[in-house]
Amino acid sequence: VGRRDLARLLVSCSDQPGIVAAVSSFLFEAGANIISSAQYSSDPEGGTFFLRTEFHLTDLDHRGPALERDFGEQVASRLAMEWRMSYASGRKRLALLASRPDHCLLDLLWRWRRHELDNAEVVSVISNHPIHEADVRAFGTPYYHIPTSLDDKATAEARMLDILVGNVDLVVLARYMQILSSDFLERLAVPVINIHHSFLPAFVGANPYERARERGVKIIGATAHYVTEELDAGPIIEQDVSRVSHRDGVADLERIGRDIERVVLARAVTHHLEDRVLVHENRTVIF
Amino acid sequence: VGRRDLARLLVSCSDQPGIVAAVSSFLFEAGANIISSAQYSSDPEGGTFFLRTEFHLTDLDHRGPALERDFGEQVASRLAMEWRMSYASGRKRLALLASRPDHCLLDLLWRWRRHELDNAEVVSVISNHPIHEADVRAFGTPYYHIPTSLDDKATAEARMLDILVGNVDLVVLARYMQILSSDFLERLAVPVINIHHSFLPAFVGANPYERARERGVKIIGATAHYVTEELDAGPIIEQDVSRVSHRDGVADLERIGRDIERVVLARAVTHHLEDRVLVHENRTVIF
Amino acid sequence: VGRRDLARLLVSCSDQPGIVAAVSSFLFEAGANIISSAQYSSDPEGGTFFLRTEFHLTDLDHRGPALERDFGEQVASRLAMEWRMSYASGRKRLALLASRPDHCLLDLLWRWRRHELDNAEVVSVISNHPIHEADVRAFGTPYYHIPTSLDDKATAEARMLDILVGNVDLVVLARYMQILSSDFLERLAVPVINIHHSFLPAFVGANPYERARERGVKIIGATAHYVTEELDAGPIIEQDVSRVSHRDGVADLERIGRDIERVVLARAVTHHLEDRVLVHENRTVIF
Amino acid sequence: VGRRDLARLLVSCSDQPGIVAAVSSFLFEAGANIISSAQYSSDPEGGTFFLRTEFHLTDLDHRGPALERDFGEQVASRLAMEWRMSYASGRKRLALLASRPDHCLLDLLWRWRRHELDNAEVVSVISNHPIHEADVRAFGTPYYHIPTSLDDKATAEARMLDILVGNVDLVVLARYMQILSSDFLERLAVPVINIHHSFLPAFVGANPYERARERGVKIIGATAHYVTEELDAGPIIEQDVSRVSHRDGVADLERIGRDIERVVLARAVTHHLEDRVLVHENRTVIF
Repeated sequence: VGRRDLARLLVSCSDQPGIVAAVSSFLFEAGANIISSAQYSSDPEGGTFFLRTEFHLTDLDHRGPALERDFGEQVASRLAMEWRMSYASGRKRLALLASRPDHCLLDLLWRWRRHELDNAEVVSVISNHPIHEADVRAFGTPYYHIPTSLDDKATAEARMLDILVGNVDLVVLARYMQILSSDFLERLAVPVINIHHSFLPAFVGANPYERARERGVKIIGATAHYVTEELDAGPIIEQDVSRVSHRDGVADLERIGRDIERVVLARAVTHHLEDRVLVHENRTVIF
Repeated sequence: VGRRDLARLLVSCSDQPGIVAAVSSFLFEAGANIISSAQYSSDPEGGTFFLRTEFHLTDLDHRGPALERDFGEQVASRLAMEWRMSYASGRKRLALLASRPDHCLLDLLWRWRRHELDNAEVVSVISNHPIHEADVRAFGTPYYHIPTSLDDKATAEARMLDILVGNVDLVVLARYMQILSSDFLERLAVPVINIHHSFLPAFVGANPYERARERGVKIIGATAHYVTEELDAGPIIEQDVSRVSHRDGVADLERIGRDIERVVLARAVTHHLEDRVLVHENRTVIF
Repeated sequence: VGRRDLARLLVSCSDQPGIVAAVSSFLFEAGANIISSAQYSSDPEGGTFFLRTEFHLTDLDHRGPALERDFGEQVASRLAMEWRMSYASGRKRLALLASRPDHCLLDLLWRWRRHELDNAEVVSVISNHPIHEADVRAFGTPYYHIPTSLDDKATAEARMLDILVGNVDLVVLARYMQILSSDFLERLAVPVINIHHSFLPAFVGANPYERARERGVKIIGATAHYVTEELDAGPIIEQDVSRVSHRDGVADLERIGRDIERVVLARAVTHHLEDRVLVHENRTVIF
Repeated sequence: VGRRDLARLLVSCSDQPGIVAAVSSFLFEAGANIISSAQYSSDPEGGTFFLRTEFHLTDLDHRGPALERDFGEQVASRLAMEWRMSYASGRKRLALLASRPDHCLLDLLWRWRRHELDNAEVVSVISNHPIHEADVRAFGTPYYHIPTSLDDKATAEARMLDILVGNVDLVVLARYMQILSSDFLERLAVPVINIHHSFLPAFVGANPYERARERGVKIIGATAHYVTEELDAGPIIEQDVSRVSHRDGVADLERIGRDIERVVLARAVTHHLEDRVLVHENRTVIF
């Protein structure tokens, strides 16, 4: 089965009997073959129902629009669904933002080159430092150096919006250490994934490794989450951890942490690109 | 939602379009509400399709037989399904077999008392040692001491079959160190889950911790699997591991291993009791 | 090498050249054979040095007092050491405190019976519930039911102190859900180890699993720490974690958490009993 | 403390009383300050004793040779030690060998550039494929493309020996899929570290991910080990694992495995470079 005729149907609605029957019968009658399907209900009585169905339909390129129209009319409106169809042949455009650390940035570029990122295209890299330019250009990706300072934060954000708005489907903060204003997030109007270098909700904010060392924890972690207005409080997509000991100073924690951060961020980005993440009351459902 | 009106429908058949539509429409029309559902296809083209659907149906006690008959006639026969319905109110009867080590045996009894084992009843404990009798009787469970030796293996197995056949739905080898004959397994005719104290397929057979120490591995593990005729080669249900170092002697590995073994075995038994395990070509599908 | 002639020397002092030479030469000249030794310096220049040396000395029973006196005079006073000698033949007396949950309490009792707890003796179990009495008495251990309420907290603590003071070397809070007053801790005057059912410093205080579920974390954990005046803020001895998903409700987190809690608490207690834990500025050094 | 005056003393000998006293007194009298020290005895009675001591000595550059001579004469010969001193200022020269997969190769080059590899210099990369040339040259490292075929294996190995012998201190097989002859290993005469893409001793040899999928394991792993004549049987330095499920096909296992392989290999190479690995009877002691 090639990607060309593959699509994913994402649905959420109030839980009620007959949802799966309605969706699967619709797809069957349309001639589609379900490849995989996962569902979740926050509560079978009065909760919210979530569905991700991946299906194959011959000649999907041409038949997609009609299929969407029919689904909307015949199924979605009757069951009051929020829904969208995502075509596997459709390429998601990514922008990566990074400050000084390069490990998450380069790791994503590598995975992209190695075709690990589901049909994505990295269309731009933005940094408040000039240092990654040669590395990024080796991947054929435009690099924008936009310095930031307390004075010109608004200017910097405006320049970034010029580059991003309308040109990207996802922004990834690959260890970007500047706080983005809520005005910026609103104008950007696409999802933003951040990697925070702690096991949230522990050590929200700055210098988490110093504070982990200070508190004497025996395990450190990293957390990938969607960015919301409140710092480090958005829906968590993925987390992982590594064991440390009293012998590990802050520099050791940073080194150990780099290996966790890049894997956690890559998993979160991949989940998002494959349309596996649905958000429900500041929590994620990962299919 | 109480257990009384809950059931699980387990299905496997050749993959083909329309399976989910057929099953979900049948359940919807019968008035059932799907609580959760998971599916897997070994290959969308020509593979085997697996489905586990948990549903709620009012008055299931009385309506179950008719529902099963209708499903067989209207859905299963048309799609050439292997299937079974499992009622959450139905209690699965367990026998636990153990040799000298008590950690897996007592752990399962505890979890049973703490209601962690889905609707199970431990109906008997059999050991080739008398040592666990007081511990087991404290749980109100009959204890059978059946010594084994090379001479009387057949006799011992016959005595065990007397106790087990017809009285149990699952046998758990909770560190039972005797090899069961294929004749025994055949007559027993219910699934048998074993915990092997290594990360299979490494260290099949006797003394895995000694051999792990000898080989100098940095991680040890445990494996829960269905018992088949070939030693330690049955379908793997669950595995887990723990880090060790050159400082850990065989006694340390055994101690560390005990904590892995009991958790891995408990997870496997729970998966089985909740009808989450389907077997496909000597591999398990865990829903 | 039997336990009878084994001892551990625990040392901390300002880091300076010659500490290891002084200690090891003293032990060598006294006829002792070093079995294992571990050291740590918080900073080779101006930091604190920690040492744990396990040694064997024939006839240690009789020679111990003189050895301690000589070490104090010849080595410790010159290098301004804090130090203590701990005899492996010396039994540490434990009291276990538990509220309603039994998994940590019973797990420690089992490990004790299985000789996993280094030379310890569980001398009493105290609970604010009567429910564990039969289980505990099966291990031959006295059980004290001391109810607590907001009115009589002082009375309850006084009764507990009557039982504990002078009779125990370590108190373990095996899911004891009452906050102990700083006055109680001061009068008790022995170390207290608590198991907190979260990955500290996340979810300090009550209902950590509810809050973990609320926050949507993908991993939960447990933390064993020494109890200090400030709630859940004492030196962390051990932590571990387990992966969870959006499908896991609070009851699932509690069930999964039980398996983490008991292992983490057992490791922390074992480390303490083997004199492997040294405290430095609210952090632990684990040898 | 800078690297310039740092050294590590590695010792192994028959265990006997007085070793630590002899070494630490010698270093103290020579004016050295011990920074860290770790020791291990395979058996306090009749076993082998291992020691790694890191120390600081002013003007070590000039005093090193005399220190080594004195240690040999005054301590090592008396206690029949095998020993060596390793200067932290001394740079270890690495050659990396890789076949088609690039993830381990590039990961090591990155870590080298990020100064994560203790004072190492990557002096050459050899591959039986031409494909990594541009990537490797971006790091300023010479790249040698040496094709291999069944006919010319001896020729290929001879060309590799020309490049390596006398020029490297460590060879790293960063997913190099050719088996090296024992003659090659003998002439090379420096340690060789390999990353095997399975949790050894499971799945020795070719296609471990296919075989892991076939066996239905629930966890996959990777193993870094020293290369010996016998395939995949050398002393294990480091292992790690990741959880997989029935949904993961061979391509998924390969993708998940890449993240394990590169971290495990990097840890093993780092341990080696920091002189933390001692070999004892086909097992490693990791300090």
